[in-house]
Amino acid sequence: MTQQIPTRLYLSDEEIPKNWLNIRAYMKDKPSPMLHPGTLKPVTEQDLEPVFCKELIKQELDESSQLIEIPQELQDFYRAFRPAPLIRARFLEKVLETPAEIYYKFEGTNTSGSHKLNSAAAQAYYAKEEGFTSLATETGAGQWGSAMAMACAFYGIKLTVFMVKVSAKQKPYRKTLIETYGANLIPSPSDTTNAGRAVLEKDPNTNGSLGCAISEAVELALTSKNSRYVLGSVLNHVLLHQSIIGQEVKAAFDKYGIEPDIIIGCAGGGSNLGGLIAPFMALRLQGKSKTHFIAVEPASCPSFTRGRYAYDFGDTAMTTPLIKMMTLGNAFMPSPSHAGGLRYHGMNSALSKLYKDGFLEARTAQQKDVFEAAIRFAKIEGILPAPESAHAIKAAIDEALKCKKTGEKKTILFGLTGTGSFDMSAYADYNSGNMSDYIPTEADLEKGFSSIPNIPQNRS
Amino acid sequence: MTQQIPTRLYLSDEEIPKNWLNIRAYMKDKPSPMLHPGTLKPVTEQDLEPVFCKELIKQELDESSQLIEIPQELQDFYRAFRPAPLIRARFLEKVLETPAEIYYKFEGTNTSGSHKLNSAAAQAYYAKEEGFTSLATETGAGQWGSAMAMACAFYGIKLTVFMVKVSAKQKPYRKTLIETYGANLIPSPSDTTNAGRAVLEKDPNTNGSLGCAISEAVELALTSKNSRYVLGSVLNHVLLHQSIIGQEVKAAFDKYGIEPDIIIGCAGGGSNLGGLIAPFMALRLQGKSKTHFIAVEPASCPSFTRGRYAYDFGDTAMTTPLIKMMTLGNAFMPSPSHAGGLRYHGMNSALSKLYKDGFLEARTAQQKDVFEAAIRFAKIEGILPAPESAHAIKAAIDEALKCKKTGEKKTILFGLTGTGSFDMSAYADYNSGNMSDYIPTEADLEKGFSSIPNIPQNRS
Repeated sequence: MTQQIPTRLYLSDEEIPKNWLNIRAYMKDKPSPMLHPGTLKPVTEQDLEPVFCKELIKQELDESSQLIEIPQELQDFYRAFRPAPLIRARFLEKVLETPAEIYYKFEGTNTSGSHKLNSAAAQAYYAKEEGFTSLATETGAGQWGSAMAMACAFYGIKLTVFMVKVSAKQKPYRKTLIETYGANLIPSPSDTTNAGRAVLEKDPNTNGSLGCAISEAVELALTSKNSRYVLGSVLNHVLLHQSIIGQEVKAAFDKYGIEPDIIIGCAGGGSNLGGLIAPFMALRLQGKSKTHFIAVEPASCPSFTRGRYAYDFGDTAMTTPLIKMMTLGNAFMPSPSHAGGLRYHGMNSALSKLYKDGFLEARTAQQKDVFEAAIRFAKIEGILPAPESAHAIKAAIDEALKCKKTGEKKTILFGLTGTGSFDMSAYADYNSGNMSDYIPTEADLEKGFSSIPNIPQNRS
Repeated sequence: MTQQIPTRLYLSDEEIPKNWLNIRAYMKDKPSPMLHPGTLKPVTEQDLEPVFCKELIKQELDESSQLIEIPQELQDFYRAFRPAPLIRARFLEKVLETPAEIYYKFEGTNTSGSHKLNSAAAQAYYAKEEGFTSLATETGAGQWGSAMAMACAFYGIKLTVFMVKVSAKQKPYRKTLIETYGANLIPSPSDTTNAGRAVLEKDPNTNGSLGCAISEAVELALTSKNSRYVLGSVLNHVLLHQSIIGQEVKAAFDKYGIEPDIIIGCAGGGSNLGGLIAPFMALRLQGKSKTHFIAVEPASCPSFTRGRYAYDFGDTAMTTPLIKMMTLGNAFMPSPSHAGGLRYHGMNSALSKLYKDGFLEARTAQQKDVFEAAIRFAKIEGILPAPESAHAIKAAIDEALKCKKTGEKKTILFGLTGTGSFDMSAYADYNSGNMSDYIPTEADLEKGFSSIPNIPQNRS
């Protein structure tokens, strides 16, 4: 029975989901397995054990469990910042004069400012459970670093964050936030690792890159006692943790009898998108719904829309396992864009497979259009979004305006992954007219593609 | 009947309060009336009409209505960001090993980052209803300016914000936030007003002051067509709007059968403190509860604990009506402190009267202790608080530790008024050891007291 739908759809304590949902278990055609870069054979738990926590490896390789219970102690931590608000965008609907119903799931009310804390909390929890006393990671825009710093402070784990040097300079407040939670922040490349020193030797004035920061973090984890490496996107276990987003939406929608026609998420490595759509994609894969899924990526880094479906490395140093994914090539250099969280060359393998199999639409958005949508949304609905999240807002507004034309009363859900509180310099650029759009040329793309390793690509 | 108490105490749509509570209506001994500075007679609605919206003046002078209905349209706006989370601090309780139960009401999940939006929304709403097309205000730390910018964007009202010059320099991101919502931000003193020009003439390099910014904003409102002035604290109508904080807590506490023994709020002009305690103080004034109320102010600006109860001006230019209040004197210069929102020389008149009559305890906290408490709280409960809010955290921890000693199972509630997202430079100072405490000397105080106007002080 449908109750009257309030502006904010809350879940009572009993209604809060206690399980993550593993989308791979619902896929008839599974994503291709991760390969060991030396042997080109599927990686084993043993291969990954020096780098990751055991339970996370199990989750990474698990393609059959549909639901995985969230440990009680972690559920308690989630309760400090979840459920995240699910809001009916009544004011936006009114201004757009659309017959569509628009909902958004807002993940930005915790101090880290984004959904990243969902996986950070889980990864820190398992590290603590397995007796690790320190962790290492990298961060680009800083959302993941902030989230890991919070989670590690909570569980009493020492954390080192390698932050891309240019970001550490451009976002000093992100740096302060991470340090305030007690983490050790090192601008990357640094002279604390072989990987960092090698890069500095070539170019002492380099701005750094996510690829190099990953290499430094992995090296530190491997060479430290009682330590492991953690990562905030792309991998399957990260998407699993992020499914709490979709699980909460599903529970609330079920409570009020709402069925989404369209679900929209911004897409970088896929952590938010995969988490948001998980339970709804599971229904679609079972033929139980016709929900349409839209991934929105920046025109400056179009992994889905202009990438290749191929085995590629996760990092530019080409040290990670090979992942079959939509990729622009590990050497692809995205232009400076303010949506730092979406500047990754590849995409989670399950989402890549779903895209190739036609279950997921992808489209791009230009930076200036994205900021225009962001500010429009902020003025109407109150929340100033992160530039990443604003990609989804742009598409949601577009879809709602289509409904206005056709008269269709569609139900649209989008993921509002975080706040723009730490992105004010980007907004200042937009306000002053100093922002430009950028679309990679075919030559830019070819340069990236040439870095995709030349191995048999037909494994699946 | 008491239900099991969850970590987050939500209100269903029907349970959300629809009224503000007017604490003055419950006071047998009313606060002394505001006086016209020329005639020294109680101000009338007519006196205030050129400056404020009519409905706000009515609310300002209303000492008899216990409940005032929140207009439906404003309730709808409140639903975009309210109810604010009410959270049981289970992790903090555990770490402190206290038998006390600790709750906090978190007002920082909206983009302005604080409780200020509760009154900003109301003031912008009434301005729109009364046909005003522009508003002027001032801001110090920037929370109020951000909140007014959001509210004015929502209702389509033009806003000019005079921001204390040194704050505009120190907090460029606050400035960007305010401008992103479309407000016109002018560093004060400016050459756009007579008040500003007069100050600049004396000292072209002045850092500015809240007092001067108030004068500039009032002047602009008075000299602009279809315009009014708005203020974010001190006045009774602001506290009235902020009573939504306490009303929500009361509704949730009633639902779960919780009775607070101690309620703690940080105190600057009194907007958060007055709003948080309103319904609980009403019970106390009716002899229906024994709740103990604690105001926490910075040792650097101790209006309650070291101030005088006297008629004083609200601004340093001595142009406002006279308010009987706890005051350090309108010329008191608070030392540089990072809790910018608490650096006001006076205190709301109703709270001042309640303090004088023994219904309210006040204590001070030193800046470094406050930041220590803030970071401790952030690591345990996840939320990085605004420095202002952290004053309340400090006292809540102190009270919980007292319970640990005595074994008393008290119920403690404190107001977490906002996030520290725009206070990272203060945290950076603390992290690097560059923060110092400051307590005004007797001579500092005397200098402030000498500015209190010499008028008959025994009116009441």
